[in-house]
Amino acid sequence: MRIGIIGTGTVGRTLGSKLVTRGHEVMLGSRTRDNAKAAEWVATAGERASQGTFADAAAFGEALFNCTGGMVSLQALEAAGDDNLAGKVLIDVSNPLDFSHGMPPTLSVCNTDSIAEQIQRRFPRTHVVKSLNTLTAALMVEPARVPGPHDVFVCGNDEGARRQVAGWLTEWFDWPRPRILDLGDITAARGVEMLLSLWLRLYIGRGTAMFNFHIAGLSAGA
Amino acid sequence: MRIGIIGTGTVGRTLGSKLVTRGHEVMLGSRTRDNAKAAEWVATAGERASQGTFADAAAFGEALFNCTGGMVSLQALEAAGDDNLAGKVLIDVSNPLDFSHGMPPTLSVCNTDSIAEQIQRRFPRTHVVKSLNTLTAALMVEPARVPGPHDVFVCGNDEGARRQVAGWLTEWFDWPRPRILDLGDITAARGVEMLLSLWLRLYIGRGTAMFNFHIAGLSAGA
Repeated sequence: MRIGIIGTGTVGRTLGSKLVTRGHEVMLGSRTRDNAKAAEWVATAGERASQGTFADAAAFGEALFNCTGGMVSLQALEAAGDDNLAGKVLIDVSNPLDFSHGMPPTLSVCNTDSIAEQIQRRFPRTHVVKSLNTLTAALMVEPARVPGPHDVFVCGNDEGARRQVAGWLTEWFDWPRPRILDLGDITAARGVEMLLSLWLRLYIGRGTAMFNFHIAGLSAGA
Repeated sequence: MRIGIIGTGTVGRTLGSKLVTRGHEVMLGSRTRDNAKAAEWVATAGERASQGTFADAAAFGEALFNCTGGMVSLQALEAAGDDNLAGKVLIDVSNPLDFSHGMPPTLSVCNTDSIAEQIQRRFPRTHVVKSLNTLTAALMVEPARVPGPHDVFVCGNDEGARRQVAGWLTEWFDWPRPRILDLGDITAARGVEMLLSLWLRLYIGRGTAMFNFHIAGLSAGA
């Protein structure tokens, strides 16, 4: 499968590398076609890896990931181009982290709106599914690194797209199906983006990102 | 021990009933001395249970709980009286739920502030410790009703007060010590109050409140 990743940070490169090892063709998209981080990634990730602009990656992918920072996501996706995004599933991994007031970051949007909703409103022909934004990149692609049950959330307006993403999470990253919690429509993105406040507190306080949220008490697969 | 509970809703009455069965004297405080819900509770909870005004309950308690709705907490605590609250540990169980725009409620404050911080700023002589606000009342006092590990959070500016509350959670409500996560100072209340957005989504979507958050991957007792 051809997968386009918008953004060349740790999240985008980690997802891309895993997808390449699973036999997929992955293009990393950035502002410029010769982005240095993307070039370094391409050089190590093998022949199924490539790089391009945001628009190149969006046009290339049959499935897409948004791995840009939440505060610049709309801008990056504008550059990717409405037509290149149309009719595709876009997995939104972004978080609205605002570092402009120092550490820890606050959220640039929350409570009554979310980045995922902003993206869905701006690109109505795209099936936006929020997922994977609540845990560190290494765990996204290898959940077994944290023992015991822990969860990944999925939400979006299109039920078929949510099911598709849940299937990919299992197929690509080995997420056990009962640990993928379907939260329904895209407004649930508010809640999962707002988890970042506690996530950051734990990350800074404990000095590790190797933890994840689990909802105890929900019946498996529910 | 004498415990004052500010608020007569399900949370206050559930905590009060459990504390009475553990041998403590509990006064439920409300706006008026003859509040009907408090009177009904007193009639069933036994001779160690009593009721009074917010000020009566605050004066009575050696330890205090704030179990009012977050949007009216400051007002209730004003009525309780600065001197009655001074020098005491106040466990803040409130959430800033704003129902004025319909269901689900949004948060009246979040991201850069929290109810717990507002209370601590207004009552600097009181040791405010945020806890127990992230789970349903029945689970607060009987965590074993949800199987497997799941967590309760504690934060506040006074380390001794946080340790005291952690001890009470174990002694009064059987919280295992490794399942009590100390998040540090009171600004962490932002993160735990913001969990309510996802909590509400799960509660409404699944039709049950018998679930709780767990942070997987943190070493026990850390």
